[in-house]
Amino acid sequence: MAVPFSVKATVAVCGSGRLPAQELEELAESVGEEIIRAGMNLVTGGLGGVMEAASRGAARARAGGHGDGTIVGILPGQDKGVANPYCDLILPTGLGIARNLLVVQASDAVVIVHGGSGTLSEAAFAWQLGKPVVALTGSGGWAGKLGGQRLDSRRSDSVLGARSAVEAVALVRDELSGLR
Amino acid sequence: MAVPFSVKATVAVCGSGRLPAQELEELAESVGEEIIRAGMNLVTGGLGGVMEAASRGAARARAGGHGDGTIVGILPGQDKGVANPYCDLILPTGLGIARNLLVVQASDAVVIVHGGSGTLSEAAFAWQLGKPVVALTGSGGWAGKLGGQRLDSRRSDSVLGARSAVEAVALVRDELSGLR
Amino acid sequence: MAVPFSVKATVAVCGSGRLPAQELEELAESVGEEIIRAGMNLVTGGLGGVMEAASRGAARARAGGHGDGTIVGILPGQDKGVANPYCDLILPTGLGIARNLLVVQASDAVVIVHGGSGTLSEAAFAWQLGKPVVALTGSGGWAGKLGGQRLDSRRSDSVLGARSAVEAVALVRDELSGLR
Amino acid sequence: MAVPFSVKATVAVCGSGRLPAQELEELAESVGEEIIRAGMNLVTGGLGGVMEAASRGAARARAGGHGDGTIVGILPGQDKGVANPYCDLILPTGLGIARNLLVVQASDAVVIVHGGSGTLSEAAFAWQLGKPVVALTGSGGWAGKLGGQRLDSRRSDSVLGARSAVEAVALVRDELSGLR
Repeated sequence: MAVPFSVKATVAVCGSGRLPAQELEELAESVGEEIIRAGMNLVTGGLGGVMEAASRGAARARAGGHGDGTIVGILPGQDKGVANPYCDLILPTGLGIARNLLVVQASDAVVIVHGGSGTLSEAAFAWQLGKPVVALTGSGGWAGKLGGQRLDSRRSDSVLGARSAVEAVALVRDELSGLR
Repeated sequence: MAVPFSVKATVAVCGSGRLPAQELEELAESVGEEIIRAGMNLVTGGLGGVMEAASRGAARARAGGHGDGTIVGILPGQDKGVANPYCDLILPTGLGIARNLLVVQASDAVVIVHGGSGTLSEAAFAWQLGKPVVALTGSGGWAGKLGGQRLDSRRSDSVLGARSAVEAVALVRDELSGLR
Repeated sequence: MAVPFSVKATVAVCGSGRLPAQELEELAESVGEEIIRAGMNLVTGGLGGVMEAASRGAARARAGGHGDGTIVGILPGQDKGVANPYCDLILPTGLGIARNLLVVQASDAVVIVHGGSGTLSEAAFAWQLGKPVVALTGSGGWAGKLGGQRLDSRRSDSVLGARSAVEAVALVRDELSGLR
Repeated sequence: MAVPFSVKATVAVCGSGRLPAQELEELAESVGEEIIRAGMNLVTGGLGGVMEAASRGAARARAGGHGDGTIVGILPGQDKGVANPYCDLILPTGLGIARNLLVVQASDAVVIVHGGSGTLSEAAFAWQLGKPVVALTGSGGWAGKLGGQRLDSRRSDSVLGARSAVEAVALVRDELSGLR
């Protein structure tokens, strides 16, 4: 028997596990919130910093009735207990930093906020896999450098630069709906 | 700001991608249904056979208002399109059969139905990781052989044998609540 | 410019990280020795017990001029320093127990000696991947149970039982040369 | 019984699977050659382009008696047959592009030649893992951009820029011997 269903798009938010500044926390929260408001699922690496802030923003939006997407945390270790408290679904992997690749594989598009070398590897993976990558250009780190860049010649598009959470998620929606 | 939340337990259902008999399909459906009724999430390998039947049972239970757990499919490949139509959240991995290990890592307990060598590897992984393993002893395959067995001396318990879906999920609940 | 070369076959030896008995140590050493004598590479999980004994036997055979295969250790962690001292090539993975799958992927055939649930998962993976599996039937553990068994119906052959290291490696050679 | 042994350092050469120019092929060959001459093992992703050229240079150096390091190819797929013909030891992984991480995990230092997003992910992983990264700055691609850059603040050193294969391997040797 058929059961009606509809699989939501899933968007990864990638960025530093430690946030250097309060305004980045608010930015990451807003990205999480906008993803839920857009009717999508959020996936992160499940830990602190950008991951936690995005998840918190998503949880708040959902608690406010603004969407019903799932908040997924894909952990490097085996212990669910280290996840931030805003994940609905915690997926331990036991794969160490290889879990970064799984965050990207699990998503339809990737938004990067600030970010160091871990985030850089995630942007590079998403590029290799042909997935849209949106960088919050004002957030510094690798996100501040990659907006507008092509990571190699296999794709004709670029990492998309966004100046706000609203713009970032609008770009994701356009990409996933084939509008661009 | 704190957002109230509660992370559900997640149970994996592992078994053959092709079902040899109609009664196994009904059994796997019932296991999925009971997992949702118990207030837990279901995770499978996202494809056909036991994975699809369990997911269908779970989706039906949820559509009937009997729970709100998430139905997760963790795929070996990169293409979401091959998932069975009952998954809420489809996580491609691109890792081939290594995704079997991720199904186990993602879960708090594993239920096996029938099953060949892939299922055997999943039971062995769950055992290594210290997670409860419940085998539907009447379903044949490795599930029919492993009930009551210790897979090695690192644990003092055994693979738990269950004769029905209801009993299997009751065993999982007892294990996860520390009642046993 | 062409460089003459010949890639050796690579055989995995899988078994417990702790050996319960002295005679198993000698058996695992003999398996490693016979693999080198047969002109093949040895791959193990790089740690102690059966892995170390097989590597020691291989290193001794090579030191005696009986072959020039490479002794490879594929580690679960990131630290080369924990490998046993008989590996020529130490490959850390950082993947935890998922490295078990890589030991199998890296090999053309798998020999199991005694072994608990980790070894069981390796036999199951090798079976899934269509690789010959040889079990030392007198060594106890899962090797003692799997000889002569089919792990599922996808293959028409069986796990091959061997009573000695010489017989085990002869079976591997026959399998890889297509004699069987 | 103790067997004398000495584990060589292992150096990864990462770069594009397709070479845009003849001079890059010669450069990658020279890097492979210098690694063997320095008494180290070479590890690559086992396929064409920079990977094949480096392996060919290494094989040639070894055939000329200039070293005895092992040439390792870590493949994304399961089929050894796709490896370039200069690998001594071919390790299939079945993990798709996640094998890029394994190339880095397997090495003590990473040299990048030209390179697109795959190479970028490898440099980022090596940085995360605290391993020296040397970029051939004249080779274009990401290698041309990363020399002298810090990929984030977790390390106080930089990606080292080298203008020649000889300089690149000299930098690796200095790094691994703690001279820098």
